[in-house]
This record gives sequence, C-alpha cells and structure tokens, in this order.
Amino acid sequence: MPELRKDPISGRWVIISTNRGKRPSDFGQTIERQGGGFCPFCEGNEATTPSEVFAYRPEGTVPNSPGWELRVVPNKFPALKIEGDLNKMGEGMFDKMNGVGAHEVLIETPRHEATLPDLDTAHIEKIFWAFRARVLDLQNDRRFKYIMMFKNNGSAAGASLEHPHSQLIALPVVPLAVQAEMDGAKTYYAYKDRCVFCDIIHQEKSSGSRVVSENDDFIVICPYAPRFPFETWIIPKRHSSVFENSDDTLYRNLSLALKDTITRLGKVLQTPPYNYVIHNAPLHEEHDVPYYHWHLEIMPKLTKVAGFEWGTGFYINPTPPEDAAQFLREVEQ
Amino acid sequence: MPELRKDPISGRWVIISTNRGKRPSDFGQTIERQGGGFCPFCEGNEATTPSEVFAYRPEGTVPNSPGWELRVVPNKFPALKIEGDLNKMGEGMFDKMNGVGAHEVLIETPRHEATLPDLDTAHIEKIFWAFRARVLDLQNDRRFKYIMMFKNNGSAAGASLEHPHSQLIALPVVPLAVQAEMDGAKTYYAYKDRCVFCDIIHQEKSSGSRVVSENDDFIVICPYAPRFPFETWIIPKRHSSVFENSDDTLYRNLSLALKDTITRLGKVLQTPPYNYVIHNAPLHEEHDVPYYHWHLEIMPKLTKVAGFEWGTGFYINPTPPEDAAQFLREVEQ
Repeated sequence: MPELRKDPISGRWVIISTNRGKRPSDFGQTIERQGGGFCPFCEGNEATTPSEVFAYRPEGTVPNSPGWELRVVPNKFPALKIEGDLNKMGEGMFDKMNGVGAHEVLIETPRHEATLPDLDTAHIEKIFWAFRARVLDLQNDRRFKYIMMFKNNGSAAGASLEHPHSQLIALPVVPLAVQAEMDGAKTYYAYKDRCVFCDIIHQEKSSGSRVVSENDDFIVICPYAPRFPFETWIIPKRHSSVFENSDDTLYRNLSLALKDTITRLGKVLQTPPYNYVIHNAPLHEEHDVPYYHWHLEIMPKLTKVAGFEWGTGFYINPTPPEDAAQFLREVEQ
Repeated sequence: MPELRKDPISGRWVIISTNRGKRPSDFGQTIERQGGGFCPFCEGNEATTPSEVFAYRPEGTVPNSPGWELRVVPNKFPALKIEGDLNKMGEGMFDKMNGVGAHEVLIETPRHEATLPDLDTAHIEKIFWAFRARVLDLQNDRRFKYIMMFKNNGSAAGASLEHPHSQLIALPVVPLAVQAEMDGAKTYYAYKDRCVFCDIIHQEKSSGSRVVSENDDFIVICPYAPRFPFETWIIPKRHSSVFENSDDTLYRNLSLALKDTITRLGKVLQTPPYNYVIHNAPLHEEHDVPYYHWHLEIMPKLTKVAGFEWGTGFYINPTPPEDAAQFLREVEQ
C-alpha cells in the first residue's frame, strides 16, 4: 500500500509509492564528463573571472594569480546585481523591486576533474569556512535578508560548468519556502516548546531505520517524508539556528559527514547528479533562535519532476527513505 | 537591471534576470519522438490497460474494444490506490495515512502521433468534458479532498509514454501549494473585497503587454511574476472558482484558447516539452467561492531547475513575461 507522509516542518504531504519499489540501479542517472574546452575556473585563467573577493592562497601570492587552493569570485553572469537601491515600487496591482543582491561562485579547488569525494576532508572544510567568511561579510549589507548557499553538481542538476564549484546568493527578500520552513518550525515550537529538528534527531536515533551515519557532531538521515528518492539530510546534533556560528570541530565533522555521504550516494547510485542546499536562518533574526536548526539537504537528481509536482508542491517518491537509508548504510566503503 | 517581482496570489518572489536576455532559440528543448515499440494506449490494445471508467465511443461499441474517440482508464502503476481506509495515524512524532486515492489516465485520442495542435477543437473539448465527468464522479467519494488534472507532454516533462494522454489524481489531502494559493487569494479578497484573478484580468487587459490572446470567454497571459520562461496562463473571464461548473461555450472556448496557445508555443519554441495543470478549488469548499478563480497554467520545460530553486522555492527566470508574450502574440499563425 502506498503511504502518504507529512513532513513535520513544512506540513508538506508526500506519496511514498512503495509498490513502484525502485531500486538504486533503476534510476540510471550518472554524471557525464564533458571534457575539453576552455575552463574559466582552472588555474592560470584567473583573469577570465571577475576579481576574487575571498581566497585561500599561500602568503605572498597576489590575488587573481595562480597558486590558490580555493577562490570566491562574483558570478560573471549574476542573477542579481550588487549595486543600486532596492527602489521598491508598485506596478498597478503588482509589486516589484530592483534585483539587488550578490551572486558569488566558490571555486572549490584548482583540480578540474576532482569530485567532492576526491578532496581531503581538510580541503572540504575550507569550503565551509569560505561560505562562513562570505556570509559574515555580506550580512553587513543591510539590504540583504537571506543568503542561499548551495551546490549544483552535474548538468542535469543545473550546473553549467563542470569544474567543482558551489554558489552563494544574497537576496533582499526571504524566499517563500524558507519562510514556510521557519513558520512551520515556529508553530511546532509554540506547541511543544521543543525544536522540531532536535525532536527529529531524537526519534531517528532511537528508531535507527532512517539513519545513514553519525559522527560526534552530525547525524545523517533520510528524512521521514522525502520529496526525492535518496534525499539525505545532514543535521548538527547541537542546536543552533545559524550555520555561521560554528567552531573548528563543527566544520571538520560536517566535512567528514558530507564527504562520507556523497561517497555513499556515488557508490549506491553510480555517481548521480545532485544538489545540496544549506538551510540557514534568515539574516538579522534575533541571535540563534530556539525554534530553528540549520542543516544541509542533499537531493540526488534521479527523477524528472513533472506537472503534478509543479502544480501542487506534492511529490511522489518511489523509494521509501528506510530503503534508501539501508542502501546507504550498508554500501561497502 | 534584473527585477524582483512578486506573484500577487502566492506571494512568491521571482528574479526576472533580463540581462541574461534569453531568446526563444537559446533554449533548444524540443520533443524527441521515440517511435517504435508497443503502445498500450493505441487502438486494439485496450485489453492491456485496466478497464475503462469513462469513454467517448460510438453507441453500440463495447467498453474496452476499438472504435473509441477518448478513454479514461485507471493508471496501471498508480501512485495511490482506490481501495481501503485512510487509517490516519502517528508514527512517533510523524504523521501518515494510507495512500488512498484515484490515479487515472485520460487517453486523449487513438492517434498515437497526434499532438494537441493536430486535434480538432471539438475533440479537445471532449478532453475537458471527460475531466469534468470524472471530477463529478470522484467527488462523491468523501475521502477525497482535491483532484489534480494535468498533462505531461514529452519525456523531459515527465511523460513516460508518448501517446497523447493527460492524468487525474484524486487526493485525500489538499496539497500545500494549492492551499497556499487559496490562502493567498483569500487574504487578497479580505483586503480588497475583490478576486485577485479578476483584478489581474482587468489590469492585464488595460496594459496589454503580457496578453497573448483573448476570446469571448478566456484571456491568455504571461503572468507578471512567472517562475519559468514562457509560462502562460489561460484564465476564464467570468469569475468561477470551480472548473467543473461550466457550460458548453466555456469548454469550447477553453479548447480554442489551449489549441491556439500550444500552437504558438510550438512555433516560437520549436515544439518544446511542456506541462499544464488545471488549478481548481478543493472539493467540498462552499459552492463557488468569491475569492478563488480556476485557471490553467502551462509551463514549457525549457530550463533545468537547480538547487537554488529546490532550496528556496525562489525562481530565476531569464525571459521577462513581456518579451515572451510579444513573441507568442506576434508569431505567424
């Protein structure tokens, strides 16, 4: 019997269509290497990107020259522009504002061919420290209300360049889905006086069936009502609503958890395209709220999203999270 | 300068990234004909589908035999099952119920190769009458709260079979995005004492820049804050919240508007994959509410949806709706 399951944070119902019973090998989505061509993100081509705003590079090397370990540069084709006033205005019954924001690219490594599992944990940690540095800088700009941190990996997942990179977009509004997540978590907190994510961690640890792995600081689970097959969340065990409030061990253990999870997904699903998104509290909320809990959501791109999903925000998932978690837990490392 | 625009119904903000300025020919998404192979929806293969629940067929022909013009059959691989109780229950902190619902396929024509523009308007009208007949039947089942009517056309848009068909899913819950649309419309009505869609029709008619076409009963527009390039809505000019409350001319004019719009999209965008979804009020609402207005939304599948969109419900659209409407308005018929 298929099941309808409700995500306790957003209130979103999902069909877990067990009778379609898809196994990992049924998806057959694998990243295809494009190869060849000029890459603006490769070492030596620094002049072809906008000037770097942050980098890990040896002392003594000049910005925008070779030798770097990681660079953050403004997107050459930004969705939003950093200059200008918001200039909020009506247009008849409609509302608009200027597309003011920041759109930056985090070039994760000079190694064009590297995948995330190829990188050292210590190097992956630098990605998170770079995200943090950019958030701390951009939040000084009071025009911004939210900063998205995410990675599209593989062209089917929306990545237009193959070279390993993630992105950051600072927005002058809080996106609807983020606000809905905050509101849902706030409603739960008002009713229970507990954080919904802390409760999820507690329940998942005691049941175990949706747990993929765990380290000192993070638990990795397939959530109860996932939208997508093999959707996987990495949740910090210590409560905090803010990604950027982190100490050394937290990012180290996040890097371990992420590398381990992407490696497992790659083995079970033959290196699928994927997206991950860091779910973080909006900027300028009161400091570290008790009701929200930052985390990272990984969505392998295995199925096509059809009209049904677009029309309703209602998802049909052919793989129960218990099955997905078991595959990920038991895969040979 | 890119613009941020707010959809007045849902409150969703969208980036209209004019500087990316994509022209229709930049997308290059065209439906590929698969050809060959066995088709369970073709005439003569009626026995390979579940038994029909509705059909347009000449008097004297037997159900599930050749000769039909249009058939509605239960989906052979349904996401939901028609039998059983909902059996709502908790699972620790989580909520679930049995996946009870109806999942039906509307086989639009025996002609395997036909596209929607190939069909007569009178035949397209039968599709909407068939949807209506199924809604009127299924709404007698008090377990159902909402009925989705939609079409996925082309494999990139999620269609697993090539033969022209649409789908209907009756759900025991109101999907989150539908509820959000209802709530947004209700909030607008509470503030203005007018239907937000009626106001949109009025404003679009007077500005004209986003109007694609118009007939006696329908206006076709590219909405002010579209999520996708060339997203196009067909809105009835007479207020009604309920798709199935329709008289003869309404479905005739809806068919004219849909055929005309799909033909225009096909010419401007070289026969793109697309989805359309009928946005209808939930079942058992008080009859024909003043605040909601049913309509049909067409989404050509031209771009890949990336992590950014999944994470936030916040869309970047490279084609301003004014440009899209102009292309669609001016294409040679």
